[in-house]
Amino acid sequence: MNSQTVGKIGLVGPGAVGGYYGGMLALSGQEVHFHFRSAYDEVMENGLWLVHHKEGGRREQITGLHAHASTNSIGVCDWVIVATKATANLQLPDLIRPLIGEHTQLLTLQNGMGNVESLARAFGSDRTVLAGLCFTCINRTAPHVIESLLPGYVQFGELGQSLSEDSRKMAQAFRTAGVGVRESESLDEALWRKLCWNIPFNGLAITGGGITTDLILSDPVLKQRAHDLMMEVQAGAQAFGIFIEDTFLARQFELTEPMGPYKPSSLIDFMEGKPVEVEAIWGEALRRGKAQGVGMPELTKLFSELGKVCV
Amino acid sequence: MNSQTVGKIGLVGPGAVGGYYGGMLALSGQEVHFHFRSAYDEVMENGLWLVHHKEGGRREQITGLHAHASTNSIGVCDWVIVATKATANLQLPDLIRPLIGEHTQLLTLQNGMGNVESLARAFGSDRTVLAGLCFTCINRTAPHVIESLLPGYVQFGELGQSLSEDSRKMAQAFRTAGVGVRESESLDEALWRKLCWNIPFNGLAITGGGITTDLILSDPVLKQRAHDLMMEVQAGAQAFGIFIEDTFLARQFELTEPMGPYKPSSLIDFMEGKPVEVEAIWGEALRRGKAQGVGMPELTKLFSELGKVCV
Repeated sequence: MNSQTVGKIGLVGPGAVGGYYGGMLALSGQEVHFHFRSAYDEVMENGLWLVHHKEGGRREQITGLHAHASTNSIGVCDWVIVATKATANLQLPDLIRPLIGEHTQLLTLQNGMGNVESLARAFGSDRTVLAGLCFTCINRTAPHVIESLLPGYVQFGELGQSLSEDSRKMAQAFRTAGVGVRESESLDEALWRKLCWNIPFNGLAITGGGITTDLILSDPVLKQRAHDLMMEVQAGAQAFGIFIEDTFLARQFELTEPMGPYKPSSLIDFMEGKPVEVEAIWGEALRRGKAQGVGMPELTKLFSELGKVCV
Repeated sequence: MNSQTVGKIGLVGPGAVGGYYGGMLALSGQEVHFHFRSAYDEVMENGLWLVHHKEGGRREQITGLHAHASTNSIGVCDWVIVATKATANLQLPDLIRPLIGEHTQLLTLQNGMGNVESLARAFGSDRTVLAGLCFTCINRTAPHVIESLLPGYVQFGELGQSLSEDSRKMAQAFRTAGVGVRESESLDEALWRKLCWNIPFNGLAITGGGITTDLILSDPVLKQRAHDLMMEVQAGAQAFGIFIEDTFLARQFELTEPMGPYKPSSLIDFMEGKPVEVEAIWGEALRRGKAQGVGMPELTKLFSELGKVCV
């Protein structure tokens, strides 16, 4: 490999997010081995395609695609990128074990809290377990077609430390591939901040009966609940020494307003009958906050409501 | 017609914006007659389709589509919706004259400043000329396929007055069709505020050599230019008695940051060799500001640079 590649990459869960970033890395010259499940046949027949809407709908095919129907045929990798749903985290270790060698490093692009810890528990904490929080809008519109709607960026962070040299190389590989990148000094802070939006808006969109974010903002009761939830997340973070400013909370509302009748990703999952990442987005934050003695009545109520509808 | 319809609508310029909103109105039961040019044959063969990315890529066809290859075959309408490029405004009166009767009202969904005035000059100022500023992200990915990426909203405003009763009915028709709607008390204020973003970011993306907004933000010189341009727009508005707060300008930068490597619409036009709306976005604001004695050195420079590359 040349000095700019990060070695052999195995990617599991090439849905919207995984397929897009894996595809971008492959197009930039990285060696990316994709593990496909149900999409394997269609990808083998038609190829894997990216569509860039902010470039006038430009379409490009991943040439020289390494597609695998089993992780056994991929073998040990230098990096494993995890883009499966967090709801499948219990099955994840078995799925990716064939990719893991002594020096294999891990990057999770999953939603919510606890994914890094779960990987570190399964494969040892002495290897890099990097997280990339995805602030973006990507859809898979066919098994082999992934459409980037707004490019956004990936915010990288490591558990309890700033980015290691290897992690910086991975971040640089994303940057070289044309992806917007941020590097975070504190993964936990980045996660709590992201949940300030996801916990109220993803949740109330579902429990409100399948409503878009504009309807949350225009309903005084729901807007107040969103604000109360956000303050509980802020208090949860505070219990871990993470200070989130009130102005940051206010800005979450300002950022949501121009989004109009927006459907949060969890609402789309819910409406399509797919598993909703209830534990990763709501459950883990609730457990962590409560363990520190933070009162979280609104989050407790929302988590309970979600548990009833997101079976 | 029933009480909820606004009468016969003629729509010219069914590209991304026009096709999407016209399609949404038609799907909600409004009588919308589309004037197609180059897309006519393909639409007749395959139908007109909307794709909603924030609903998991849901596709729907406009059934019972009224498609016309000539505005003569549409005839006089109750409302004409104008969604052509502002660069074609000089040819517009001839195109839509067959649709205009004594009581026909007009709605322009075009970009930039001066479109309402241009329509009022051509067809008389005693009829409603409503403007809808589109804060959204929509692409036409094939002549007959229009994809909504982020729903956003349409901000309605009338020249020099708050919305008339008929205009409110049209706004309500959009709302009923599932479109996010805002009603503005002052069209000019809404336009100047929108230009606070479009003038710096659409312009510098082009003159910077075809760069995305993240590169404008990360380059200290370009970021300073963006800020200076914004303050000139603010001063231009001020000369017309429109007060734009400094915090609004700061918020434009905050809103742009999470957008990552974003391509403004004018940059996409530019890269695809399509006409850029230089007069509507930069020229008109510059002329209006200068006519009031506002010094606009940065906008003058940018307008001149754009004139050289956007032929």
